[in-house]
Amino acid sequence: MAIPTTMRGVYLTGIGGLDKLVYRDDIPVPLPQAEEVLVKVGACGMNNTDINTRTAWYSKSVTSETGSGGREGFAEAQSNDSTWAGSGLTFPRIQGADVAGCIVGVGKAVDDNRIGERVLIDPWIRDPATPTDRSLAGYFGSERDGGYAEYTTVPSVNAYRVDTELGDSELATFPCSYSTAEYMLVRARLAQDEAVLITGASGGVGSALVQLAKVRGARVIAIAGREKLDEVRNVGADVVIGREQSNLEQAIREATLKGEVDVVADIVGGSNFPTWLDLLARGGRYVTSGAIAGPIVDLDLRTLYLKDLELWGATVMPQDVFARLVDMIEQRKLKPLLAKTFSLAEIGTAQSEFLKKKHVGNFVIVP
Amino acid sequence: MAIPTTMRGVYLTGIGGLDKLVYRDDIPVPLPQAEEVLVKVGACGMNNTDINTRTAWYSKSVTSETGSGGREGFAEAQSNDSTWAGSGLTFPRIQGADVAGCIVGVGKAVDDNRIGERVLIDPWIRDPATPTDRSLAGYFGSERDGGYAEYTTVPSVNAYRVDTELGDSELATFPCSYSTAEYMLVRARLAQDEAVLITGASGGVGSALVQLAKVRGARVIAIAGREKLDEVRNVGADVVIGREQSNLEQAIREATLKGEVDVVADIVGGSNFPTWLDLLARGGRYVTSGAIAGPIVDLDLRTLYLKDLELWGATVMPQDVFARLVDMIEQRKLKPLLAKTFSLAEIGTAQSEFLKKKHVGNFVIVP
Repeated sequence: MAIPTTMRGVYLTGIGGLDKLVYRDDIPVPLPQAEEVLVKVGACGMNNTDINTRTAWYSKSVTSETGSGGREGFAEAQSNDSTWAGSGLTFPRIQGADVAGCIVGVGKAVDDNRIGERVLIDPWIRDPATPTDRSLAGYFGSERDGGYAEYTTVPSVNAYRVDTELGDSELATFPCSYSTAEYMLVRARLAQDEAVLITGASGGVGSALVQLAKVRGARVIAIAGREKLDEVRNVGADVVIGREQSNLEQAIREATLKGEVDVVADIVGGSNFPTWLDLLARGGRYVTSGAIAGPIVDLDLRTLYLKDLELWGATVMPQDVFARLVDMIEQRKLKPLLAKTFSLAEIGTAQSEFLKKKHVGNFVIVP
Repeated sequence: MAIPTTMRGVYLTGIGGLDKLVYRDDIPVPLPQAEEVLVKVGACGMNNTDINTRTAWYSKSVTSETGSGGREGFAEAQSNDSTWAGSGLTFPRIQGADVAGCIVGVGKAVDDNRIGERVLIDPWIRDPATPTDRSLAGYFGSERDGGYAEYTTVPSVNAYRVDTELGDSELATFPCSYSTAEYMLVRARLAQDEAVLITGASGGVGSALVQLAKVRGARVIAIAGREKLDEVRNVGADVVIGREQSNLEQAIREATLKGEVDVVADIVGGSNFPTWLDLLARGGRYVTSGAIAGPIVDLDLRTLYLKDLELWGATVMPQDVFARLVDMIEQRKLKPLLAKTFSLAEIGTAQSEFLKKKHVGNFVIVP
């Protein structure tokens, strides 16, 4: 198969609104470096992190608590601390963290036999010399070009061979959301028969948390918008509760066997945070990888220390999380939740619809 | 030695001010239950927890952030959730968690040979059937009578034989503060050569943290009031910084080797909390066992998750922490910081002076 020299793709041209996303058909096809592979993108999933990076929500100078509206409040943001890893973002940048595809070329240090492999890409790019050093990690589609294009390159170690009957669009729902969710449950040490509260359970990470918590044999209490509860139940939650419920805390307590939960896996944040800590049993664990309803929350240190709680952040994960995810996919333990597909040229429409949060599961771009 | 039938001691008669502490000379000497020992109190150390319990500061309904003044704001508190363990407090209660003394009697299930042993008391009372179950733990001097009296009883397993040249007043500085501090460092996994920031380093737990962090070979940056810095340096801190310093964050960064710290051990809370999290390195650990400057703090969930931080509460500890503490005392790795001694009748004066926080180390009551 001949590799063209130019390709279609989407450039992020700066920090800002949707107008910063520019569809192009003349982007140079990248060349793999020695330790890298060239991947023909079959599909690339969408994530909040695409929008957070574009709007510099990760920057400390943006503190709005108004949810997705607040995330558009990028006026004061500095581009030099706008990414997950806190390092600078350069433009133009091709975003897109969730790639399923096929290896079509390799760098000179990579075995030719990898050409033709069907792969899923681990989006955490680690320094090969110090792969366990969190401070050196970068993200695919953020610190380097990602998957909103026909071709992309990644270090060979990031391209995991995957053997599955699932299509590329279905596979592309997994990488970012499911590795993040699995890492959250690793940090919280969620165990069989424990009760876990999952907030924002209809989204990409939320629905991944539901499935992965069930793989661990936990009892899942899931919070989502009222109109999505049936779908979240179908994903596998034992109990679903509408976040509009007037007495949310009481409803959750009644849904547990002992009136409290062992783990809270939260990707929403906002004003319910104190309630989540109150719901935790003594010695309970709270873990977060997002705060779409507002990042600044009230913490009562007495609750934290008198109940011996643990609060965990989960972003930069060790390599074994992704390997385990690929295993679970191959063993058919996880079902893809493909909400909708879009073409590269439709990226603006896709992100607008994504932000409305009317869907359950994942949006995917197909080049 | 004949055991009298009545003794001198201090009754806490209810939730409230210093007037709730009543000195008496007609308190019945307690009888040890089957698994218990009777201890003649040599000395009993004072702690914030005495005052927190009296003023029901542990109750969720008290949320003042005004420090020791705020802790006296007990008007709305409920006595049924006023203790560490969240269980009810009954009156009259003899407080006092930090007892050094001598076993003078034993219950029928305890070996007579223990009579005459010099002991230090582990204040965490565990259910003998389930000693690792945090939810069943109670505190000596809170859920049961403690050491502000001539005699007290405890489960035999809580009375640790101690072989040392230190006097009882010196020994009584250790139990509550040092076991709490050691448990904080256990949870935060403080390791050799790591940098630890210790807040409130002049108090009982704070000065214990300084010593115990040095035992672990960490680099200690200690925050305290300006007038106590020399004393905190003498305790062993590598760097001392006055909390009145205008740019505290910058001063701390300059005191580290890499501009950030690995662990924050905080017993102060209050408005500096966001700064402590900003100072933590990626993957850093924050641990708390108190919040004297105010329990309700602003938490930026982005800081927690994007830096993969861990926030730990430390209250109910496993048994091995106290055993290790006794070992360190016997091996002379810790020096007692005896600030001042008082008699039982002087308890009101002692607590008033204690609350002024002009001292470094621990106050002790000698019956």
